[in-house]
Amino acid sequence: MLTLVFVVGLAGVAVAYVLSRQVLKADTGTAEMQSVALAIKQGAGAYLKRQNTTIAIIIGILALVIYVLYGARGEMAIGLKTVGAFVAGAVLSALSGYFGMAIAVRANLRTAAGAKVGVNRALQLALRGGAVAGFLVVSLSLLGVAGLFYLFGGLQNPTAVPMQLVGFGFGASLVALFAQLGGGIYTKAADVGADLVGKVEAGIPEDDLRNPAVVADLVGDNVGDCAGRGADLFESSVAESLGAMIIGIAMYEVFGLGGIIFALVAHALGLVASMIGVFTVKVKGDEDPMKSLNRGFLVTAALAFVGFAAAARLLLYTDTAPKAWLLFAACGLLGLLTSLAFLFITQYYTSHRYRPVKSIVEASRTGAATNIITGFAVALENTFAPVVVVGIALLTSHWLGGLTGLDGGGLFGTALATMGMLSTVGYVLAMDTFGPITDNAGGIVEMSNASEDVRNTTDKLDAVGNTTKALTKGYAVGSAALAAFLLFSAYLEAAGLESIDLAKPVVFVGALMGGMLVFLFASLAIRAVGKGAYYIINDVRDQFKENPGIMAGTSKPNYARCVDIATKGALKQMVLPGIVAVAVPTLVGVLLGPEAVGGTLMVGTIAGVLLALVLNNGGGAWDNAKKYVETGVYGGKGSDVHKATVVGDTVGDPFKDTAGPSLHVLIKLLSTLTLVLLPLFTLFR
Amino acid sequence: MLTLVFVVGLAGVAVAYVLSRQVLKADTGTAEMQSVALAIKQGAGAYLKRQNTTIAIIIGILALVIYVLYGARGEMAIGLKTVGAFVAGAVLSALSGYFGMAIAVRANLRTAAGAKVGVNRALQLALRGGAVAGFLVVSLSLLGVAGLFYLFGGLQNPTAVPMQLVGFGFGASLVALFAQLGGGIYTKAADVGADLVGKVEAGIPEDDLRNPAVVADLVGDNVGDCAGRGADLFESSVAESLGAMIIGIAMYEVFGLGGIIFALVAHALGLVASMIGVFTVKVKGDEDPMKSLNRGFLVTAALAFVGFAAAARLLLYTDTAPKAWLLFAACGLLGLLTSLAFLFITQYYTSHRYRPVKSIVEASRTGAATNIITGFAVALENTFAPVVVVGIALLTSHWLGGLTGLDGGGLFGTALATMGMLSTVGYVLAMDTFGPITDNAGGIVEMSNASEDVRNTTDKLDAVGNTTKALTKGYAVGSAALAAFLLFSAYLEAAGLESIDLAKPVVFVGALMGGMLVFLFASLAIRAVGKGAYYIINDVRDQFKENPGIMAGTSKPNYARCVDIATKGALKQMVLPGIVAVAVPTLVGVLLGPEAVGGTLMVGTIAGVLLALVLNNGGGAWDNAKKYVETGVYGGKGSDVHKATVVGDTVGDPFKDTAGPSLHVLIKLLSTLTLVLLPLFTLFR
Repeated sequence: MLTLVFVVGLAGVAVAYVLSRQVLKADTGTAEMQSVALAIKQGAGAYLKRQNTTIAIIIGILALVIYVLYGARGEMAIGLKTVGAFVAGAVLSALSGYFGMAIAVRANLRTAAGAKVGVNRALQLALRGGAVAGFLVVSLSLLGVAGLFYLFGGLQNPTAVPMQLVGFGFGASLVALFAQLGGGIYTKAADVGADLVGKVEAGIPEDDLRNPAVVADLVGDNVGDCAGRGADLFESSVAESLGAMIIGIAMYEVFGLGGIIFALVAHALGLVASMIGVFTVKVKGDEDPMKSLNRGFLVTAALAFVGFAAAARLLLYTDTAPKAWLLFAACGLLGLLTSLAFLFITQYYTSHRYRPVKSIVEASRTGAATNIITGFAVALENTFAPVVVVGIALLTSHWLGGLTGLDGGGLFGTALATMGMLSTVGYVLAMDTFGPITDNAGGIVEMSNASEDVRNTTDKLDAVGNTTKALTKGYAVGSAALAAFLLFSAYLEAAGLESIDLAKPVVFVGALMGGMLVFLFASLAIRAVGKGAYYIINDVRDQFKENPGIMAGTSKPNYARCVDIATKGALKQMVLPGIVAVAVPTLVGVLLGPEAVGGTLMVGTIAGVLLALVLNNGGGAWDNAKKYVETGVYGGKGSDVHKATVVGDTVGDPFKDTAGPSLHVLIKLLSTLTLVLLPLFTLFR
Repeated sequence: MLTLVFVVGLAGVAVAYVLSRQVLKADTGTAEMQSVALAIKQGAGAYLKRQNTTIAIIIGILALVIYVLYGARGEMAIGLKTVGAFVAGAVLSALSGYFGMAIAVRANLRTAAGAKVGVNRALQLALRGGAVAGFLVVSLSLLGVAGLFYLFGGLQNPTAVPMQLVGFGFGASLVALFAQLGGGIYTKAADVGADLVGKVEAGIPEDDLRNPAVVADLVGDNVGDCAGRGADLFESSVAESLGAMIIGIAMYEVFGLGGIIFALVAHALGLVASMIGVFTVKVKGDEDPMKSLNRGFLVTAALAFVGFAAAARLLLYTDTAPKAWLLFAACGLLGLLTSLAFLFITQYYTSHRYRPVKSIVEASRTGAATNIITGFAVALENTFAPVVVVGIALLTSHWLGGLTGLDGGGLFGTALATMGMLSTVGYVLAMDTFGPITDNAGGIVEMSNASEDVRNTTDKLDAVGNTTKALTKGYAVGSAALAAFLLFSAYLEAAGLESIDLAKPVVFVGALMGGMLVFLFASLAIRAVGKGAYYIINDVRDQFKENPGIMAGTSKPNYARCVDIATKGALKQMVLPGIVAVAVPTLVGVLLGPEAVGGTLMVGTIAGVLLALVLNNGGGAWDNAKKYVETGVYGGKGSDVHKATVVGDTVGDPFKDTAGPSLHVLIKLLSTLTLVLLPLFTLFR
């Protein structure tokens, strides 16, 4: 069965390679398009190079710290394994981000050129470009976890090895944190900076070639949504596998190795389902492209469930409880339904067809203040349904698992629900990366003076891309909540704790700190965007002053300089929130001990899920309220209502693209960090 | 010692009576002033009458439910006591709000008239008017708790009676919830409604007599800040006394009755200190009136500590641990210092002299969106310091208490820190009610065409009142956090639970629900303001249409009709959030059991404290950013920067005056509700 995992993992890489060849072979459009795309490609490459250098230094230092830590306890061998896994997790996460983005910044041009042929062609190119990222992320996470499991002797000693892999998860979390933070800061700093200095100060339209920040803005979509979210979901996938494997250890006497590697097998089959799903997507005639993508998702989900049930029958069958596998398969189905529920709820709160966005538009008639108040009320309200859904999913899967009558069956049931939810991750990531590709394609078409027809096609796809981006965020936060819950159990196990007792003062204070960390981190992430934007505004002002030919249209602005400044700014600004994210749980652990940090972990997760929902969907709702007015209602573009919605949209930008997504990563980082640094927390006790 | 409590309690009522006579004897100004003040008085009275009728119905229904509940368990006697305590808590809370406001709506006119004499005269009248509310709140809470303790046979059976008093706390919480919610909705709905339809639509200035909503706006200050916050702090004071008494039971073998009634004695001495403090306040020459108020606070705090230490020596001296009383007195000092720290932090985050507000003003230069983004970042950031302070206070007092070597000394130490913090509550409430009185005085002066000089005086006091209102909110949230922590222990005790283990799925889900409840409740409270404002806007539009003479200035608008409509609207809108606040913990308790609801309680408290800090101080910072620009910086009133800050101020209004303060009450309601409904949660188990 482990062989199957390796085969599918390698097959995923192979399919990603084939897809990328297909995409690269496609028409690359006009020379004008190519020059814009080249600038984006170079900018994104330069950003990623710098980011990875910075991250490499941080990873190096932490690797040393971890090694010394384990060494101080005389656990050299485990220390070496943990450090090895840590570095491997970091490298694979960075690699999957790198390759995924390398294709995305090439697929954008092909999508723009493909838009001349028609919607179906452009959509297929964008989705397949996105699928390269999606498949690579899942494949590399499978190969990484399965490979280390094999290397560390998991076949001989399956109950001890999974805990030695937590370093892999920590490495992946850390890279994800910086990738999502840095990318999120970059993308919104460039967006806000370009808008403020271009539209507001210089009075030139959006995506105008004379604006030196316009390329930085397009680069931002790739480094934020593509590389950032890729690292986020790589991490979710790893964290979930590790958590499920550790929980599977408790079932070793019943299911043997099968219970431990079930997560990997389920992921592998889910990847196969995602591949088939992506290849079935086709826009039929004039239909809404979103419909085609939804069809592909349903195909993926159905196939993933079939694979899941088959794997349950094979690996989780036992004579002592012959119906257990059926109950566990039902847990998987529950997870899939949970992901569907999350997609629906996200759509309800962020689409203009439903009450929430409509109420924001309505409130905008009395100005920007009421737009913000109503949007904030909507954002706070939208925590209700997802929390109830997660609560029901956790308790029902725990109950179903308990019905098997097996010891530890309840917890194993919750692990299976999480696996069910994450079994479609390959397809979801393809849809997500689809977003920046179509967004970029739209930008390229706009900047290369293509025909009206082509613009309409890319505009249509761009709108779909916005929806898929919002949906992925809903999916990411739901899966983060469930994956984190699995790692709680791992933490309790590792720390030898029976409970996390909130009634103890140290635990309560640890819990308070966890909640506060989430709020403080979000504050720093939001503020970082503002600071990052200032660097860009200043550079654009300088360029206009130094070279008056830019505004006259007689000479080209220096896009690369703006990209470079945005890069440096974002990387500088990501340091403080990154340090806070690592420092707060570490300090709580060192000062107050392992049980207190358990409180930090759990309440941090709860607060993180809630605030991420507020920021993501609040931002999405404000965005779509503006877009809805731009379709012509209440006076359309330029009206007072529109101006009010623009304020809301600008406020929502750093919420939904920087702070919110970074919180998903923070949630999982808390789990993996506390697991890896546990020796430190017990050192002085 | 219990006699002392009764004596001080009655003395507090007597002093309140004397103060109110003093205030009522003062000059009542011109006929114009009197007519405005009369309208406010009638409006506030009508509101409170309707509100109390609504609350009485709810209380009646719940009293029946509680009685049936205990009856079903065959605990008729305890059921009757609980219901009696519940009704008494509700009635005393309503009474203290009623009398406090009755004086406030009379002191406003006297303060306006006193402004002709000078700042000192006006400040003293406003503060003494406020002190009536403050002293009554503390006195009635003392008389209520001590009286019931005596009536229920506390002297004979001191270890059993305190738990029978929790109904008193629940009654107080419930009235506080509706008073704060209804009052908060009323005040901001009237404010926003009056502004939108007056300033924006009709183009008339603020506080213009032609605006039919202008009286409703002034009424709102009384029902929100005066009656609402009064009920909030009545409840804090009760919750803290009850929690401390229950914790004191564990020390019964060491300290006897003294340990149980210590909280009441400390409160009584604190009330004496507050009285002396209020009487020392005097504005010396040209000094900033805030300085005089601060001086009074320091006098109060110093005297309260002396009383606290003396009480500790008398009641907490034991030969087995002769230094214990010193350590416990140190815990009280810690609590006092915590309240000082909270006042300082609140000031740092909401005063224009420091970085946070300055950064908002700076960001407003690029428009409303950046004003909101920066303000929100400031609001999120401001959770850091208070949480660290509360954490340090809890752990240090627990440690100090533990140093006594007495069993349960740690927890008792945290109780004493809370008592220390709340020992100045009388003075703080006087400062708080000072706010609406001076605000009203300003409105009366404005609307009665008084001279420039008088206006300057009331403007100065109004600014001070805004500061004191913000400070009280900081104090209220800090004391709510500590008081809630005390009640956790009571809950564990009552439910017979050893721990609240977050690692259990039901407890984790209960905790998730607690966090979500806070966000959902805040959303509903914020939205209620918007809905309430619509009623007012519609009525004002109707009045302008029906009677064109209003705008021409030839006939008077119908203020009473607007007040009546605002009243009905606010009371209607407070029902839904009120039901949600009661329903969520009840459902969790019934469906998932007592330990899960413990998770709801604790994580709800953490999330509530964090979100209340965000909403209160975020709102305060936006408010003062606007006020700072109005002093003339960046172009002053009417400039683009000013417009951007007006948006932030409007957004912050329902945050800081409706949702934030209501969350304080929700936190404590969670504690008392779970304690009282505990029999329901265990019914089916």
